[in-house]
Amino acid sequence: MSLLVVGSVAFDSVKTPFGQADDVLGGSATYFSTSASYFTDVRLVAVVGDDFPDKHIDFLKSKKIDVAGLERTTGKTFRWKGQYSFDLNEAQTLETHLNVFQSFKPKLPESYKSSEVVFLANIDPDLQREVVGQVNAPKLVAADTMNFWISGKRDSLIKTLKHVDILFINDAEARQLTGKANLVKAAREIVSYGPKTIVIKRGEYGVLLFHGTSVFSAPAYPLEDVFDPTGAGDTFAGGFMGYLTWAGDFSEATLRRATVVGSVMASFNVEAFSLERIKALEDREIKHRYKEFKRMSHFEDLG
Amino acid sequence: MSLLVVGSVAFDSVKTPFGQADDVLGGSATYFSTSASYFTDVRLVAVVGDDFPDKHIDFLKSKKIDVAGLERTTGKTFRWKGQYSFDLNEAQTLETHLNVFQSFKPKLPESYKSSEVVFLANIDPDLQREVVGQVNAPKLVAADTMNFWISGKRDSLIKTLKHVDILFINDAEARQLTGKANLVKAAREIVSYGPKTIVIKRGEYGVLLFHGTSVFSAPAYPLEDVFDPTGAGDTFAGGFMGYLTWAGDFSEATLRRATVVGSVMASFNVEAFSLERIKALEDREIKHRYKEFKRMSHFEDLG
Repeated sequence: MSLLVVGSVAFDSVKTPFGQADDVLGGSATYFSTSASYFTDVRLVAVVGDDFPDKHIDFLKSKKIDVAGLERTTGKTFRWKGQYSFDLNEAQTLETHLNVFQSFKPKLPESYKSSEVVFLANIDPDLQREVVGQVNAPKLVAADTMNFWISGKRDSLIKTLKHVDILFINDAEARQLTGKANLVKAAREIVSYGPKTIVIKRGEYGVLLFHGTSVFSAPAYPLEDVFDPTGAGDTFAGGFMGYLTWAGDFSEATLRRATVVGSVMASFNVEAFSLERIKALEDREIKHRYKEFKRMSHFEDLG
Repeated sequence: MSLLVVGSVAFDSVKTPFGQADDVLGGSATYFSTSASYFTDVRLVAVVGDDFPDKHIDFLKSKKIDVAGLERTTGKTFRWKGQYSFDLNEAQTLETHLNVFQSFKPKLPESYKSSEVVFLANIDPDLQREVVGQVNAPKLVAADTMNFWISGKRDSLIKTLKHVDILFINDAEARQLTGKANLVKAAREIVSYGPKTIVIKRGEYGVLLFHGTSVFSAPAYPLEDVFDPTGAGDTFAGGFMGYLTWAGDFSEATLRRATVVGSVMASFNVEAFSLERIKALEDREIKHRYKEFKRMSHFEDLG
């Protein structure tokens, strides 16, 4: 199957207690597609400005990411600046310059319209719907969102969710979207908006997957050194959706494995700034860490 | 093997967003021993005042808890008053009246001195050492503590930890005790104080068990209705230590099962005020929920 992603390609400037990086490659679609590229071919939809260097496009191509849908236009590329305090749990946004993203009207190349799996990264829910509408017959649509759209464009977001099968959301945002403090109740409420599967990201505490009446709790990998959490959510979603597309089925067992694959990819991502750690992973590193997740959460039946 | 616990027996007054309860049976040793009683015989060391009704003692006896070490003295029983806000994650202490606990000098009955497993609930670290010193040849000593002792009696606590094999502590307290924000580093630091096994409680996010070079991540049960978290930590420790004592070995596999058993017991405890839910559990309810934990955290190997 084929995986399409729409989202941002950006320059990030990030400061953490361990150092800083300026104008490095970032953006939700970049992290997502790099992570997913280890499992399947990815078709990228995004926009960059004329300040975007060829070397970054060459990098994406080197990961076999299809950039036919990466529009290059006059102006500056989307820029984000943020910092993390010592606990590294939440980014504080210092600056957001939408630049060329402000007037972005995604238009899918003909070759993209047959995509079977679609991921709508965290962008304006109006744009998310525009992209879904251009895909002929998607078999599975997944989406991410954030507090900014929940508070600013709630009605549009609810409309988008009618087209979504899997929603990725963090715990605070699930509570904000539904007004329910309890995550079990929040997940059930979100199901009533459309998505059948809810993936609640809890940062250093792992992930809860709600699917039908079943709940899966995936642990997070307790890393000794976390350098930069930027992109962890998108890297998670990339591993999840990339694995799912490769597997070609959406069963409970596959969804659970996808959750752990996503967690594995995110655990690598936070070990270094930008895409430094995930840009050149080896398959055996991914498989080895998956086994460590398995070992970490294993316990025997009660005798 | 035999399990001894020293801790508080108290009257609690608790207010949550779902209701309140006044002067109900509480205290760390009460929750611990009730929870442990489902797996092994428990010997209780604590003090109560002359206001403590026989019915509560009869209840403890009905759970086959040995109360030879429960001293009854002139004065009032320890009282605690607290409340929880909507997220139910942290108790706000409104009143603490130590009463008869203030001058408590635990003295073990002869019949207790042969105890093989000892649990030092969250009390003054000086008292914790006094109790350990009276046990002839303990095979395993476990302890709990809290922010109050970490900030107020750090040196004494560090002395106690030299005698401790397993430390139960929550994540914020592990950070406070060690000055390390990262839990992997905090656990390693605590190992240098004495304990070989560190059990880090993370409330609704589950438990991390550090043992040698291995890490076990146990999920928390995502409950739809949490009524009263009071005693959850002690109920967890009671299930953990009760199971361990019953199993009679302290291997990694047993420690992991004990962690899940503790989580199972804690998940029942928070479903009602005081001991209402855990005072009359059936074995099959415990086994059933253990299986649900297993199902909740299961995922297949990568194909």
